[in-house]
Amino acid sequence: MTRMHTYLTNGSFDHAVSPFDRGFAYGDGIFRTLVMRDGMPENWPLHYQKLVADCGTIGIVCPSAELLMSDFQQLFLPDGLTENHLAIAKIIITRGEGERGYAPPAVTMPLRVVIKTAMPQYPEENFVNGVNLHVCETRLAHQPKLAGIKHLNRLENILARMEWNDPTIADGIMLDADNNVIECTSANIFARFGDVLLTPDLRQCGVAGVTRQRIMSIAHSLSLEISVETFNVEKLMSADEAMICNSLYGAWQIRGIQHRTWQAGALAANTRAALKT
Amino acid sequence: MTRMHTYLTNGSFDHAVSPFDRGFAYGDGIFRTLVMRDGMPENWPLHYQKLVADCGTIGIVCPSAELLMSDFQQLFLPDGLTENHLAIAKIIITRGEGERGYAPPAVTMPLRVVIKTAMPQYPEENFVNGVNLHVCETRLAHQPKLAGIKHLNRLENILARMEWNDPTIADGIMLDADNNVIECTSANIFARFGDVLLTPDLRQCGVAGVTRQRIMSIAHSLSLEISVETFNVEKLMSADEAMICNSLYGAWQIRGIQHRTWQAGALAANTRAALKT
Repeated sequence: MTRMHTYLTNGSFDHAVSPFDRGFAYGDGIFRTLVMRDGMPENWPLHYQKLVADCGTIGIVCPSAELLMSDFQQLFLPDGLTENHLAIAKIIITRGEGERGYAPPAVTMPLRVVIKTAMPQYPEENFVNGVNLHVCETRLAHQPKLAGIKHLNRLENILARMEWNDPTIADGIMLDADNNVIECTSANIFARFGDVLLTPDLRQCGVAGVTRQRIMSIAHSLSLEISVETFNVEKLMSADEAMICNSLYGAWQIRGIQHRTWQAGALAANTRAALKT
Repeated sequence: MTRMHTYLTNGSFDHAVSPFDRGFAYGDGIFRTLVMRDGMPENWPLHYQKLVADCGTIGIVCPSAELLMSDFQQLFLPDGLTENHLAIAKIIITRGEGERGYAPPAVTMPLRVVIKTAMPQYPEENFVNGVNLHVCETRLAHQPKLAGIKHLNRLENILARMEWNDPTIADGIMLDADNNVIECTSANIFARFGDVLLTPDLRQCGVAGVTRQRIMSIAHSLSLEISVETFNVEKLMSADEAMICNSLYGAWQIRGIQHRTWQAGALAANTRAALKT
């Protein structure tokens, strides 16, 4: 396997992970993926705030922003000197090593791993005409204690992502057991009805991403009013327009879900423009 | 941290795990913990059958029994030569390394890690008089696609286990969102009503352990009839006797749950004896 990336483990280059690390043993940790531009993280304050909040939800003390910035400098700056150079940083924070058993040790030393990968080459088509989505059979279970956070227990997303191989499908919509739309496997969802922009309530399951949060903050500049609510696929299909979003590509218009197709719309393009200002 | 163990990674001593391993990235794998006696795994056919079944549920090809037996021999036989020497083997199987993203690579090379730890020194009291249990506030979410398997997504068990520090509490009872008793954080549960032995239905959540399976097979030798059903804590508290079980200690009588205490009973002792024959 050839790779364009390297990584840092607690600030050291290419140190592997202990099998006693609780991230490996139990998925006992959280992660984030974000864009690095010229060696610097985009929207860092929001991403760091989310890292701290997600760590806090499961009782991990998040490493300081200074440590992570120092990791970014070691890993990305040599590339970042190239003008407009883009790359992806993935940050993984775990509770650190432990003995056998679910009880965390009395004293834990969180592990931080920062991984550098190349910016994905997304099809231009996705930005221009939008994307087609699968509707996943795998459901997201209700777990209010973990809802919203981007933790390392991602088997539901994996099983959902394994449901299709068609490269013309950009992502899959995940529902909960009550048939409510929650998110895509790697994105949040918005649906526009007139001047109201709906996005699913994530208090029972799903990941509340930073780009979702940013879109909620800038919606007024698009003359849209945000409404966080519960809705099913039928309601989503009756939207005037809809889009998916994440930190890597910003926003993509939804062009098709099963038999429902939408005419070209400007929601995602306008959102991407607003996210850049 | 001093440890009495070493480990093998794909048959090599003390090789750490890549941060690109999907077990670390997403909890994309399964595990088992079992007793090694004189360097040989106890109840190996059932444990291996369960490894294969659990791997199959999430689409991982389980390494052969021969490979795992070869790992056991490398790791445990030098100790196993001591008469009656007991140790614990933990086997972790992951989907192996992948690129960023939930989609597994087209070709995967599963990772197997075998870890040796010392046999825990359980209080003799637990075997003689039984154990006290906490009732966990953290619920198990319904996820029929993952129910029953011992996968690496264990944040619910961790949050539940973090609810108590009292060393006189041996484990915590986990309920589902409908208030049904499912299991303990590290054990399955049985409750006796007359000559019927109830154990929770695990088709929505929980881990269907090998010792639970063995108890279900030998119940007739204790003149008990097994009934797999759905019941709540109130029902459990009205049982004539109750016990918890796992592969390490066999079975422990439940002495107390909150205000409910039971007189000494013979269910767990009889079960342990029957499991040994």
